[in-house]
Amino acid sequence: MDTLSTFLQAMRPALEQALQEAVRPWQEPPLLGAMVQHHFGWQDPKARRGKRVRPFLLLLTHEAAGGNWRQALPAAVAVELIHNFSLIHDDIQDQSPTRRGRETVWHRWGAAQAINAGDALFALAFAQMGGLEAHFPPARVVEAVNVLARACLALVQGQVLDLAFEDRDQVPLEAYWRMVRGKTAALLAAATDLAALLAGVDAARRQAFRTFGERLGMAFQVWDDYLGIWGDPARTGKPVADDILARKKSFPVLYGLARPESPFAQRWRDPAPFTPEEARQMARWLEAMGAKEHTLQTTRRLTQEALDALHQARPQEPAASALEALALSLVGRQT
Amino acid sequence: MDTLSTFLQAMRPALEQALQEAVRPWQEPPLLGAMVQHHFGWQDPKARRGKRVRPFLLLLTHEAAGGNWRQALPAAVAVELIHNFSLIHDDIQDQSPTRRGRETVWHRWGAAQAINAGDALFALAFAQMGGLEAHFPPARVVEAVNVLARACLALVQGQVLDLAFEDRDQVPLEAYWRMVRGKTAALLAAATDLAALLAGVDAARRQAFRTFGERLGMAFQVWDDYLGIWGDPARTGKPVADDILARKKSFPVLYGLARPESPFAQRWRDPAPFTPEEARQMARWLEAMGAKEHTLQTTRRLTQEALDALHQARPQEPAASALEALALSLVGRQT
Repeated sequence: MDTLSTFLQAMRPALEQALQEAVRPWQEPPLLGAMVQHHFGWQDPKARRGKRVRPFLLLLTHEAAGGNWRQALPAAVAVELIHNFSLIHDDIQDQSPTRRGRETVWHRWGAAQAINAGDALFALAFAQMGGLEAHFPPARVVEAVNVLARACLALVQGQVLDLAFEDRDQVPLEAYWRMVRGKTAALLAAATDLAALLAGVDAARRQAFRTFGERLGMAFQVWDDYLGIWGDPARTGKPVADDILARKKSFPVLYGLARPESPFAQRWRDPAPFTPEEARQMARWLEAMGAKEHTLQTTRRLTQEALDALHQARPQEPAASALEALALSLVGRQT
Repeated sequence: MDTLSTFLQAMRPALEQALQEAVRPWQEPPLLGAMVQHHFGWQDPKARRGKRVRPFLLLLTHEAAGGNWRQALPAAVAVELIHNFSLIHDDIQDQSPTRRGRETVWHRWGAAQAINAGDALFALAFAQMGGLEAHFPPARVVEAVNVLARACLALVQGQVLDLAFEDRDQVPLEAYWRMVRGKTAALLAAATDLAALLAGVDAARRQAFRTFGERLGMAFQVWDDYLGIWGDPARTGKPVADDILARKKSFPVLYGLARPESPFAQRWRDPAPFTPEEARQMARWLEAMGAKEHTLQTTRRLTQEALDALHQARPQEPAASALEALALSLVGRQT
């Protein structure tokens, strides 16, 4: 078994247990408990669950920075809770009917109660942070709370931009990066930053670990945008060119819209909904314009920047290799 | 000038400045800044603002517990930010079109972006807490974060119950108190608890200060329920018997519904909307049943319990007198 799998095999049950223990005392009123259980897929052993990317990234980084991953579990749980708070609120905002193959919380219980379910996970995340005091000096825990709170703010800022893009004809690439830095990269950056901070590394190494998480988050988002158009439906569980059908202003789409005379941009400006066949045609136009290749190259460049930052951070083995493997697995290098 | 006014005259500008400074670095994207400015009424010097009950309660309690109120400002700001996060989300959930005489955030910018505005204030509250480290030992700050996070959870739990009550014919009084303990009392209890914790008083005094805030919060809610039916429209800015028109299951209404054969309960069960005249008749029926007197007596009893707890906490003068005056002003004794 490779190093990453060995780590994950130990970490996964510990993380799941810590996550469930964090939530368990707050099952009242039963409706709140039911929404949270349903969201996490805990009411059904066969339900699809999250991949836990952020907490694993945090735990592996903590090891690579010289810590013991078990001690960082409360921070890993907090980061996963924040991620899930944002998913529950995102689904309301995007009016998404399903997630992980089941009904979204708002679709089942209404938007009003779903807002509460998200808020509860938000609060639970901060209630977790006190648990770090068992192993870390309190001043470091206060700093960790601050890092987490700032990541939440950046996350919300990214989400404000993302929603605002829907009403705009054009989105400059610079605005796209600002959105991604908040919406996706901020929480991955916080995960590696918290891990390094808690391990007590010096400021330069901590910054390098943080940059590793941030660049990885950006690469992850661009790769997700790639999959939203050219992903294999059998693997993504979504139709071909799904992001075009949904008119999502993703990275490849912005590449196409930046060439306003292209057939792609002309058809996009026509507000008529796309048929599936048109969406496939749009994807082919984008590819012919070079958007597919440019998207892949951008993911590769950001991933390389992430790995360069990781090396600068002088991560310790064996976690270093596991971390590199986790990073590459997130951006589709294994396929 | 009385003691309370003297304190408030010093505290108000310091609090407003700290609140605005907390929010200022997070004005990006401009839409987020605009929503927050509008909510607080900062874009217009004549706009109505909040009464800042919770932060003043915290600052006065901190003085009464032997502290210096200026040092507790970050906690006061955090508590006010949490209160305003909950108002923004409440207004979405209740679909309220106005607050403090102006349009609510969701009504102006849509529910999706209003969710973000609330989430941003939530995160900002926790980002404030690190500022306490300038004057307090870090272990105490970690404990304060924990108190605040648990208050947020209780707040959300109360809100889940409150929304769920709308779909129920009957609400037992026990469930009403559970709702109020979360929705209103939890944040006032957290305000006095944080104040005492930061001042470093012993566990018994801290608990007494906390009980003071909690009972005051419960009294405050019952008094608010009283005003929702029998308040003077010239003072509340709302029509007579407004809570009956809105079919809110407030304390006096539950008193009436507990007597299912009464004309009040019979008419309530008829789903036809109330005319203003009918609502006034319902209020008179409630009064004749003894609901008005019982509501007043309950406020008085809870206020007395709050003041008893305050005396047990052995508060220091001159803040002690100011705190008592603030408490009485919240439950209408001055009228």
